[in-house]
Amino acid sequence: MRYDIAIIGSGPAGLAASINARIRNKNILVFGSSDMSSKLVKAPSIDNYLGIESLSGKELKDKFKSHIESMDIKIIEKRVNNVYSMGEHFTIVSGDDMYEATTVVMATGVEYGKMLKGEEEYLGKGVGYCATCDAMLYRNKIVAIIGYNHEAEEEANFLSEIASKVYYIPMYKLESQLNDDITIIEDRPTEIKGDRLANKLVLKNQELYVEGIFVIKDSVSPKYMVPGVEVEGPHIKCDKDMNTNIEGLYVAGDCAGKPYQYLKSAGQGQIAVSSAISYLDKKRIREKMMSSEVKSL
Amino acid sequence: MRYDIAIIGSGPAGLAASINARIRNKNILVFGSSDMSSKLVKAPSIDNYLGIESLSGKELKDKFKSHIESMDIKIIEKRVNNVYSMGEHFTIVSGDDMYEATTVVMATGVEYGKMLKGEEEYLGKGVGYCATCDAMLYRNKIVAIIGYNHEAEEEANFLSEIASKVYYIPMYKLESQLNDDITIIEDRPTEIKGDRLANKLVLKNQELYVEGIFVIKDSVSPKYMVPGVEVEGPHIKCDKDMNTNIEGLYVAGDCAGKPYQYLKSAGQGQIAVSSAISYLDKKRIREKMMSSEVKSL
Repeated sequence: MRYDIAIIGSGPAGLAASINARIRNKNILVFGSSDMSSKLVKAPSIDNYLGIESLSGKELKDKFKSHIESMDIKIIEKRVNNVYSMGEHFTIVSGDDMYEATTVVMATGVEYGKMLKGEEEYLGKGVGYCATCDAMLYRNKIVAIIGYNHEAEEEANFLSEIASKVYYIPMYKLESQLNDDITIIEDRPTEIKGDRLANKLVLKNQELYVEGIFVIKDSVSPKYMVPGVEVEGPHIKCDKDMNTNIEGLYVAGDCAGKPYQYLKSAGQGQIAVSSAISYLDKKRIREKMMSSEVKSL
Repeated sequence: MRYDIAIIGSGPAGLAASINARIRNKNILVFGSSDMSSKLVKAPSIDNYLGIESLSGKELKDKFKSHIESMDIKIIEKRVNNVYSMGEHFTIVSGDDMYEATTVVMATGVEYGKMLKGEEEYLGKGVGYCATCDAMLYRNKIVAIIGYNHEAEEEANFLSEIASKVYYIPMYKLESQLNDDITIIEDRPTEIKGDRLANKLVLKNQELYVEGIFVIKDSVSPKYMVPGVEVEGPHIKCDKDMNTNIEGLYVAGDCAGKPYQYLKSAGQGQIAVSSAISYLDKKRIREKMMSSEVKSL
């Protein structure tokens, strides 16, 4: 099945995009988390969302949640690893699963933290962002997983059944139980080293010899998530209609630039979907004309 | 007194701009109406303002009103006729009154209707948009006022004390009492004619010989309100940070372009104020540096 619009992110930008797309009767996919936005729920007080006076982030999140539930919008609780432009549509990769959509709205936020020294250099050369995607490459090999969230634990467990050795470096307070054969390293990674391929993870107090390293963050820099997208620093480059350099790909919210504000993000979600729908309409007319030309040949 | 930010318009864009500017402790002026937005109050149902489920336009307006009142934001209920860029600040003209502000956010909407045939040609040559501003030019002369709203009646009454003859052509259902010496014409204007200056108002069923014509609309095209501003059709040209071609002048909402949606407008109001504040900050630093350079000479 090919969806009309895939919305990546469930913060204010992604949610506003979702309700607007739903009202316009589009088939949508929304990727995100049940918390909507980890940044939002942590906000102590929000006073500048016009029409909603002084609420905590959690209360505002509850209002958003109630709004999307009233429209029967479901959030797919999965991290998106990659979005590939295939010309006439996009392929969205999340772990082992693939989805197809004609347009994509990127609303992933900007909180993907600093890169490790060597991370960018070795990305794709022994360093990856999705263990389940690349697991087969590491059969019987030694791998390290730097995990920034609980979801990374699943990837570690999965990998431990394939790799010969799995080191798990939690960047948060680890509370769950991992598979027995995983070695947990409580230390701070500082650098990835190697030759042609990455082969060493340097930590504050030790070095690990490895054959692969996965960095599992809340979100991946759009530059790596969407090959070919033009960026400006940490943001996806866009115009005032939220168009990016890739036809059919739109952006909204923090990943579209400053100011980092909820109302601004929501407004941009609405604009992005409006632009996506114009594109869908034009594409449909173009295809209709082409098919009637073909018939008349 | 020079204000930091003048906000022209009290729809969602202007109100979002106001609350954000107030939170950032700026001295603001907000021009608008007690109804906030005539378009908003007429909306039967709004479902796509994220966080606020299914309300009538009037109910949403009440929420907006309560929000700005909780922040002690006052709306100046006056129509702005012109905004002039004076280099280091702007002068805002409303009837007989003038205000000064370092930056301006234009949030005037787009509903200023079609121009009459000849209106643009004779603008400033016998045709004007503000009777109280230009009244002295028409002492003892014959003038016609084409009024699109009740506020135009005040201008007609005022003018009737100065001009030798006032025709009033109401473009809405006239219910109030005008000064006795005003002649009310219930007819549809079609064209403004003249030689060097406008001297004839053509209506469907008659022609009036006049020496001046005022067209009093809810809002004036930004092209005539702000001399020198770049437009694209009915919209003010802007980038994604809501900058216009004039330094210190920002735009938000319907007058910044489509889609015409409340959430989008509010989000842009937030962006516009954020850009205005960056400009104010930079300007202050620049002035501080210049004054210390002067001292050190």
